[in-house]
Amino acid sequence: MMEFDTIAAISTPMGEGAIAIVRLSGDEAIAIADRIFQTPSGKRLKDVPSHTIHYGHIVDPKSGQTVEEVMVSVMRAPKTFTREDVVEINCHGGLVSVNRVLQLVLTNGARLAEPGEFTKRAFLNGRIDLSQAEAVIDLIRAKTDRAMNVALQQMEGRLSKLIRKLRQTILETLAHVEVNIDYPEYDDVEEMTPHLLMEKAQYVREQIEKLLQTAQQGKILREGLATVIIGRPNVGKSSLLNALVHENKAIVTDIPGTTRDVIEEYVNVRGVPLRLIDTAGIRETEDVVERIGVERSRQMLKEADLILLVLNYHEPLTEEDEKLFEMVKGMDFIVIVNKTDLPKNIDMDRVKQLADGRPIITTSLLQEKGIEDLETAISEMFFSGSVEAGDLTYVSNSRHIALLHQAKKAIEDAISGIESGMPVDLVQIDLTKAWELLGEIIGDTVHESLIDQLFSQFCLGK
Amino acid sequence: MMEFDTIAAISTPMGEGAIAIVRLSGDEAIAIADRIFQTPSGKRLKDVPSHTIHYGHIVDPKSGQTVEEVMVSVMRAPKTFTREDVVEINCHGGLVSVNRVLQLVLTNGARLAEPGEFTKRAFLNGRIDLSQAEAVIDLIRAKTDRAMNVALQQMEGRLSKLIRKLRQTILETLAHVEVNIDYPEYDDVEEMTPHLLMEKAQYVREQIEKLLQTAQQGKILREGLATVIIGRPNVGKSSLLNALVHENKAIVTDIPGTTRDVIEEYVNVRGVPLRLIDTAGIRETEDVVERIGVERSRQMLKEADLILLVLNYHEPLTEEDEKLFEMVKGMDFIVIVNKTDLPKNIDMDRVKQLADGRPIITTSLLQEKGIEDLETAISEMFFSGSVEAGDLTYVSNSRHIALLHQAKKAIEDAISGIESGMPVDLVQIDLTKAWELLGEIIGDTVHESLIDQLFSQFCLGK
Repeated sequence: MMEFDTIAAISTPMGEGAIAIVRLSGDEAIAIADRIFQTPSGKRLKDVPSHTIHYGHIVDPKSGQTVEEVMVSVMRAPKTFTREDVVEINCHGGLVSVNRVLQLVLTNGARLAEPGEFTKRAFLNGRIDLSQAEAVIDLIRAKTDRAMNVALQQMEGRLSKLIRKLRQTILETLAHVEVNIDYPEYDDVEEMTPHLLMEKAQYVREQIEKLLQTAQQGKILREGLATVIIGRPNVGKSSLLNALVHENKAIVTDIPGTTRDVIEEYVNVRGVPLRLIDTAGIRETEDVVERIGVERSRQMLKEADLILLVLNYHEPLTEEDEKLFEMVKGMDFIVIVNKTDLPKNIDMDRVKQLADGRPIITTSLLQEKGIEDLETAISEMFFSGSVEAGDLTYVSNSRHIALLHQAKKAIEDAISGIESGMPVDLVQIDLTKAWELLGEIIGDTVHESLIDQLFSQFCLGK
Repeated sequence: MMEFDTIAAISTPMGEGAIAIVRLSGDEAIAIADRIFQTPSGKRLKDVPSHTIHYGHIVDPKSGQTVEEVMVSVMRAPKTFTREDVVEINCHGGLVSVNRVLQLVLTNGARLAEPGEFTKRAFLNGRIDLSQAEAVIDLIRAKTDRAMNVALQQMEGRLSKLIRKLRQTILETLAHVEVNIDYPEYDDVEEMTPHLLMEKAQYVREQIEKLLQTAQQGKILREGLATVIIGRPNVGKSSLLNALVHENKAIVTDIPGTTRDVIEEYVNVRGVPLRLIDTAGIRETEDVVERIGVERSRQMLKEADLILLVLNYHEPLTEEDEKLFEMVKGMDFIVIVNKTDLPKNIDMDRVKQLADGRPIITTSLLQEKGIEDLETAISEMFFSGSVEAGDLTYVSNSRHIALLHQAKKAIEDAISGIESGMPVDLVQIDLTKAWELLGEIIGDTVHESLIDQLFSQFCLGK
């Protein structure tokens, strides 16, 4: 295990609550807690067994003033979150008192932890690998059950295991090649023929491709499906937004206090997390004077995974409608023909033509009709024939996906090298590259700056 | 101990955090947790010692699906927060996963706890009295160190002890009177002469008065000093607000997600918690077109403990200024003459006359001058000659203060009864009333509906 100083932070979300926790980790964690903790019986934390809980008071050793009534948990290394000694001070949940407790911990020898530093230590101390550490933050941020399951699997090391297996295969292949080059006379070593080399490389490529096939869904589960609602003024965009938001429970809002340029809402549509973009814009524009135009829609479409294009059943198609269809050409979109409660004036044949095979849903949002059909269409579009998260190892993280693509490219280079009869040592270079790229996923081969950057995205106290 | 069902709730604030806790309390707490918790070694929580922590997974017993990686704390009655068996499930802090864990707990035998129900059980099971339970919520809501200390003292039972002592004195007096009435021939019983009765009654009154003397400060510490900034347009109200907010750290915002009619900000001025009222109004009005007028000020003043009346050093007093002074007559106010960076045009003699003994502070908020003087004035106004919270038993809760006033009234009735030679059994009635009223503070004599109402103000999971 590596040597670190002792860190501390408030590990519960900010806000008034029933419980607030100050967490310490490091060699000095128990000694520091002992300095500011008094039990009625006078017992010392340094003498208690691991994984036990103790009632007492936090007392400022300088002033002798009692600061909080607490329960203190003592967990000794190595069976802890960080593999270091960990102390958790369980306070009554007041913002002032928990901050006072943290201040006392800091003035008595601990350093304020950086965001994600506890998890970083779990990584640096070898308890979890990098992809597992990344899954911890995914688990916290998960917006749906499916996303949670994907994160949990990754945290438990399912992706890591697969990656390790692939790296092992590459490494063994490289070793064989090496032996064949260096000692071609060895009879007891299986000869690494170009044919066998090809077989191994193709196996690795297949496995990577299989993983990448889960990437689209995995990424959607993790980040939510960036969804944009477009349409002419007064077709019912804000009604659609409201229907989606109100019909579907489990709307998980963002971290309180973070300001964002674009306001987003999350809606869980049958396990598909929709990340509705610029909902404020829609609300605002339809509430006041509708200003949304083609230009603005174009901007919004850039980041969309799914477009909900709303038309007016009661009005003939306009030039603006046609322009919107042009804009979404080639993208994933669903056409919603709204206001079926009014007489039909739209040319549905033309709509079908424009939709070009995409689903067309007719709705009367006023009468709450057609919303279920829309939800079915969304879920079929993104989980058609897909199995439950439990049965697949998903890759969901953009960093992992990018590395897998690069590794696949390196393997493909190796394969075409073998095909074209390239010298084995050149093929070796490509294989080694693939091995390294895969290693970056689990953090075996990775730069310190990247590690710092990854963990800085965590919340404080984690 | 009373018999209750097993309750459960999320005890950490809502929001993404490093740790989220699901807390259970009741006879079935450990059994319920056992149904959904699996450890690598297969050990069962029912077999573990009290006050120990266990690593494992929350697994849905129906689907067999893993829901979270957790640490579970087991604390057996009676040495727990509620005096019942308590289990705390320490999760990774994701909103979805912690809600899944709570759902599993609820479908496996627990009932969702009402706000404050854990603390209510601590009260009903006799671990703490009512004033101590109320202090728990005060501690959570405390905005300053002093407020926290007052709450902590009360939680530790300092107020309760004093109240119990007073009730004991009254009870003993009543018993003596009783004996004197029933067995006037008993020689070994000290005779309860009207003189002695008077002495006891006066002692109780004095003690109550002493407590009530701390009430104003106590209430301010607990609730914050409702502060209103008034003044004509463009005198610098929003600059004053900004100066107060930015100069003073430890601004504690309200619970995220609660919407309130009036927006408030807390500022800690040398231990005095200022609750700045309608700051949004001030910001809004000076930012755009200032609309604040005499009518609006009048509304705001109704709930104010402290008024900061801002004047313009650079302009002569106007009729509107004079009207503002009229409105604050008899209230606690501080006059701030702002813009000393500009030439003087105000008649300071007239200001002094209007201030009528209240502090006058000259400031140039533009040049950041005079803010310290203002802070000194505020702190002197409310803590003049006051000792530190540590030395006094404060009464801070409006309910307690009201009961103390009523008890004082009952004692005074008893005293004037004794003075006017009223029959002893009539004096007895008043003393009994005082005894009962004091009992309501600690919850010895109190209606169930009041208890329900008090605990419903708590946060969930406490």
